[in-house]
Amino acid sequence: MSEQPIILHLVSEATGQALEAVMRACGAQFQDAEFSLRNWNLVRTRVQVGRVLAGISHEPGPVLSSLTSPELQTMLRVGCARLGVQVKNILDGTIHFLEQQTGIPAERHPGGQYVMDESYRRRIDAMQYVIAHDDGQKTTDLTRAEVVLVGVSRTSKTPTCFYLANRGIRAANIPLVPHAPLPAGLEHFPGLVVGLTIDAHTLLEIRRSRVGMMLPGRSMAAPGMSETSVKPYIDPVNVQEELQWARRLCTRHKWPVINVTHRSVEETAAAIIDMLEHDGTTRILPAM
Amino acid sequence: MSEQPIILHLVSEATGQALEAVMRACGAQFQDAEFSLRNWNLVRTRVQVGRVLAGISHEPGPVLSSLTSPELQTMLRVGCARLGVQVKNILDGTIHFLEQQTGIPAERHPGGQYVMDESYRRRIDAMQYVIAHDDGQKTTDLTRAEVVLVGVSRTSKTPTCFYLANRGIRAANIPLVPHAPLPAGLEHFPGLVVGLTIDAHTLLEIRRSRVGMMLPGRSMAAPGMSETSVKPYIDPVNVQEELQWARRLCTRHKWPVINVTHRSVEETAAAIIDMLEHDGTTRILPAM
Repeated sequence: MSEQPIILHLVSEATGQALEAVMRACGAQFQDAEFSLRNWNLVRTRVQVGRVLAGISHEPGPVLSSLTSPELQTMLRVGCARLGVQVKNILDGTIHFLEQQTGIPAERHPGGQYVMDESYRRRIDAMQYVIAHDDGQKTTDLTRAEVVLVGVSRTSKTPTCFYLANRGIRAANIPLVPHAPLPAGLEHFPGLVVGLTIDAHTLLEIRRSRVGMMLPGRSMAAPGMSETSVKPYIDPVNVQEELQWARRLCTRHKWPVINVTHRSVEETAAAIIDMLEHDGTTRILPAM
Repeated sequence: MSEQPIILHLVSEATGQALEAVMRACGAQFQDAEFSLRNWNLVRTRVQVGRVLAGISHEPGPVLSSLTSPELQTMLRVGCARLGVQVKNILDGTIHFLEQQTGIPAERHPGGQYVMDESYRRRIDAMQYVIAHDDGQKTTDLTRAEVVLVGVSRTSKTPTCFYLANRGIRAANIPLVPHAPLPAGLEHFPGLVVGLTIDAHTLLEIRRSRVGMMLPGRSMAAPGMSETSVKPYIDPVNVQEELQWARRLCTRHKWPVINVTHRSVEETAAAIIDMLEHDGTTRILPAM
């Protein structure tokens, strides 16, 4: 680890999502460096670039930018040169590549991507769909779902649905509860159903920590919850049986299963997108 | 608009989020081109690169890649050259820049970013926080919130909270209901509270379309909802008064207000991040 974090300024004319995603991917390639990020979003005027430059001069450090306006890019570059800091535009190379491939010159106007276009509406619609269909709500109305996630309690179904929604995919999730009948909508769902599972030991730890917070007097205290009422939920034998039952259920319905124990929610979502797009052919499903 | 869409292959060793964000930003600079995207995620082995190359040969088109492993990058580049398609790596330039700035060579191992690190845990925690505190639930427990969004019904509070959570920020949201008392937790909340508002005309349209779907016999039919019971919700005079009341409430509490009428949810989230980081100094708050 280096002595002190490197201050890195991220300057975006829009919402900073491209910078954040690129920095997350690139930063991971430097485990021995520590970056301290300063976000400057919605920078669309010369006055705003002036404020960013004032902020950089206050805490000097290298700059990653996603500005596309030539005027603002020049102003930022000249200003940074005066302050003795380097600037790298993260989009220029890709824009240039697309110009070559399409034979069309880029428009280079700021913030074009957040026109509320079809893809935007699809993502917001998908997000509202997730909220309406979270945790087994409205299972009679699965017709609009592109994928349904099933799994026992605490297998990351909800956050996975939100990552899918953010990619424009409408995902419903249904908890698998032993001995409870499956909702009819699920039995006859014609699209992709994916089971999420997790190692018993890990699930037990997650549930124990959650229950700890929900008992009376704790930060997430829930009405009616007592040490006795939660026993089956965190009993090792029960948890093992619950997972086995869910696994057999998925096998019987020929639903593919993803083990989320060592996977981030984003990776689980990416694997599901892969199943939707390519029948999962780019990856090999892990054994449960 | 060009004759037919350009097929663009996006090849990621991880979840494809950096490629998606970069492509969303760059694609917007080419309004006259239409791209048809093929996502190849979690590509981490030579066998998987082989499958991607087979997919590209099936539907040839330019390739954007975020691979960091030199071995897989070479295999992809050589394979694409054979197929006569161009490849552009979207991360290489930024990684090289960070190598220069830090003096540390990049590790170039695949998928490093999805170690379940502190930032990952923060995002998942924030997402679970949003679900637990959506729509005025658990308002007695706002202590962990970094920001609270308030606004009348249908002002995009929930999706905005999810975009904030995806950036690791714990956001609660509380609906403003005329004549209902504010939750005590909100009155004494020491952190940032932001009001969301929207033009009356737009709000009316959104609510009318929503109500249309929720009446008996429609796709989102809700129990107990009838044309009479929803009248105040979609009455133009009521809606106007509701918005004015909410605006005065925010003014009285000195809560900044964002008008979301012409803003995407991502832009609203970016403006809130800016308020949290820089007291909103990079932008000028619009008049309501």
